[in-house]
Amino acid sequence: MAKSTGKMNAFYAQSGGVTAVINASACGVIETARQHKDKIGKVLAGRNGIIGALTEDLIDTSKESARAIAALRHTPSGAFGSCRYKMKSLEANKREYQRLIEVFEAHNIGYFFYNGGGDSADTCLKVSQLSKSMGYPIQAIHVPKTVDNDLPITDNCPGFGSVAKYIAISTREASFDVASMAKTSTKIFVLEVMGRHAGWIAAAGGLATDEDCDLPIVILFPEVEFDQQAFLAAVDKKVKEYGYCSIVVSEGCHYPDGRFLAEQGTRDAFGHAQLGGAAPVVANMIKDALGHKFHWAVADYLQRAARHIASKSDVDQAYALGKAAVKLALKGRNSVMPIVVRESSKPYKWSIGEAPLAKVANVEKMMPKNFISKDGFGITDKCREYLTPLIKGEDYPPYGKNGMPKYVVLKNPPVARKLGDFEVK
Amino acid sequence: MAKSTGKMNAFYAQSGGVTAVINASACGVIETARQHKDKIGKVLAGRNGIIGALTEDLIDTSKESARAIAALRHTPSGAFGSCRYKMKSLEANKREYQRLIEVFEAHNIGYFFYNGGGDSADTCLKVSQLSKSMGYPIQAIHVPKTVDNDLPITDNCPGFGSVAKYIAISTREASFDVASMAKTSTKIFVLEVMGRHAGWIAAAGGLATDEDCDLPIVILFPEVEFDQQAFLAAVDKKVKEYGYCSIVVSEGCHYPDGRFLAEQGTRDAFGHAQLGGAAPVVANMIKDALGHKFHWAVADYLQRAARHIASKSDVDQAYALGKAAVKLALKGRNSVMPIVVRESSKPYKWSIGEAPLAKVANVEKMMPKNFISKDGFGITDKCREYLTPLIKGEDYPPYGKNGMPKYVVLKNPPVARKLGDFEVK
Repeated sequence: MAKSTGKMNAFYAQSGGVTAVINASACGVIETARQHKDKIGKVLAGRNGIIGALTEDLIDTSKESARAIAALRHTPSGAFGSCRYKMKSLEANKREYQRLIEVFEAHNIGYFFYNGGGDSADTCLKVSQLSKSMGYPIQAIHVPKTVDNDLPITDNCPGFGSVAKYIAISTREASFDVASMAKTSTKIFVLEVMGRHAGWIAAAGGLATDEDCDLPIVILFPEVEFDQQAFLAAVDKKVKEYGYCSIVVSEGCHYPDGRFLAEQGTRDAFGHAQLGGAAPVVANMIKDALGHKFHWAVADYLQRAARHIASKSDVDQAYALGKAAVKLALKGRNSVMPIVVRESSKPYKWSIGEAPLAKVANVEKMMPKNFISKDGFGITDKCREYLTPLIKGEDYPPYGKNGMPKYVVLKNPPVARKLGDFEVK
Repeated sequence: MAKSTGKMNAFYAQSGGVTAVINASACGVIETARQHKDKIGKVLAGRNGIIGALTEDLIDTSKESARAIAALRHTPSGAFGSCRYKMKSLEANKREYQRLIEVFEAHNIGYFFYNGGGDSADTCLKVSQLSKSMGYPIQAIHVPKTVDNDLPITDNCPGFGSVAKYIAISTREASFDVASMAKTSTKIFVLEVMGRHAGWIAAAGGLATDEDCDLPIVILFPEVEFDQQAFLAAVDKKVKEYGYCSIVVSEGCHYPDGRFLAEQGTRDAFGHAQLGGAAPVVANMIKDALGHKFHWAVADYLQRAARHIASKSDVDQAYALGKAAVKLALKGRNSVMPIVVRESSKPYKWSIGEAPLAKVANVEKMMPKNFISKDGFGITDKCREYLTPLIKGEDYPPYGKNGMPKYVVLKNPPVARKLGDFEVK
């Protein structure tokens, strides 16, 4: 294996579910790399995550204008394409690691920046071990990203703050709406949010109500086993006090036996199970028990793609972490992840630190117990203190004269291939 | 019946489904009335629409500060409460009209401003006829409002532009998201939007794609009878060309026999019909036929309450129409509705005109046929030219340091009652 000479190129890719701010991290990586052309060559992006590396489907980001790269900061989704693909262990699939090394070598890649959540951190960790395990010199740095906010060590994960802001605002707005309608019509509004394992996003619904704006919100967390009687009693109490009630239900809310609320034995004409989500199930349950007219919404992708109302904290941190990843690489680090360190909540101060990847990969951070109120249907002051800074500030994208946000679509020109085909199995 | 002397008070109420900008109209009415204290006394708001008039449940808006009233301009929902209540004809329910007159007389009300859609225009028309039919001097002016955009004569209806902007942006954002995921995961995104009879809101999904941002969007209108084979072929074509496809489906989309898509014979464990909406039905249909992984969202109240991304055109017009209603009253008009008149689309210029209520009430404006593309799954250039100005400009609400929008909750103090109880049947 011929050792590459001179400065090395960098590989960057996006992995897993995309967010409103993952491109802000990409922007941080690419802009910072461009500022260090003496040490880093081109940033080659993987088309569709690690798949792009395996299939030698690389994008030459050096062909994009500074303006296009800057626009990534305000563009949601994954500009280079993402993937859901978890690499097996070196023992189980040595073929793939050998291929990675061939591609890295062919394109003079010495830096590997992987932008993703828990599974991706695991992939990044495995790549970081290639120097030792297979003798190829690579520095692998993981850039955190996940709306689930479930990565350990870092105070929070880029992507989450913007979803939290969207859910908090949407819950407030819909609550105002149902309050207006409650006298003669809708008394119940149910919003279903993401988060199959951890209730971070559902918790953000609790921010809809605060000391300046008192609203009746009941939250159903995946961390709290669903107790129908207690839930209905909580809703009934709110309706009696306020005249209406909003419910934020996590898609991961489940019964004590593990069955999700969404699995109600629902069948369509073709016999399909689970056509709807948890929201209509909860809404109908209330209608049956309490007789109230309802409306329900399922936010799905809208919540994680909502760059139009992104949190400024979140955008700033996403960019800073991308930038920090490059700085760590320049310092010679390998197998690490830059993290957000909270210095204080009031006033909000944060800095960038680093964590060893081995302590990040495959660890899921759940909501602390003291973040959920005793009755199981709300958030505590401690949770509010944690969440509030993460939705601080508005970072609006630019808009065209036609009233639409100007999100960039990159040209994404391919790098000329040097190797043969490779099948990803 | 003792004739009231001196200047008369005004009654204002909100009716039907609320919007992101109906309070901007309230703001226009109240601020303009306050500027003419020589001619108009207090603005008394009906708590929960016309119900507030019938039950003598009136709110004294003169007790609210200028600042609180100004904040209505950026606050979604109906600040005084709305209602779904259609008054019968004078012949069918004379009791209610007599009661209205008693309440108007007791509170010296000579102006009646009703803020709503088609049904409300009908109520307003009936009230406007009280002078002739029952000898009580009242000037009734209707202030248009409906996200359905289905009132006749006016170029568009306040509330619609902001929903349109929300749906256009959300569809663009979610399309960027699914584009990123399509290689290894989700290829189909379905967004269900409001509009049971008219496809105006669904059409707004078509604005997600334009000359600067080419996206694969398929729209299902209530005006176009659902043809499953044609629909699946349209989606298949988009997926083959772009690798993914977004579908915007109106809740009113239906089969030739009138059955809504949402009515798929779905039953939950309790035997309830129609748990889910049209979106999961469409998504599963694609999965069955084409095998693609999907995600779906139902925007429901989020779309009409989304003041955080309101259209500036819409907010400006909502305010201007409230203001114009008072100006019409001051000119001695009765039984009219101020309307938006489009002077030109490029550049967008509009003015305020007026229409006789008799020509507005109970007339539903559908999408013109030449607004829907020949294949039935998209919008035409003519439609785009009509819609684009309506989503022009961003009118952001102010935010607190906690990252949440500062929506006002009025004190809504009641006016002392002078009459006995009245039961609304």
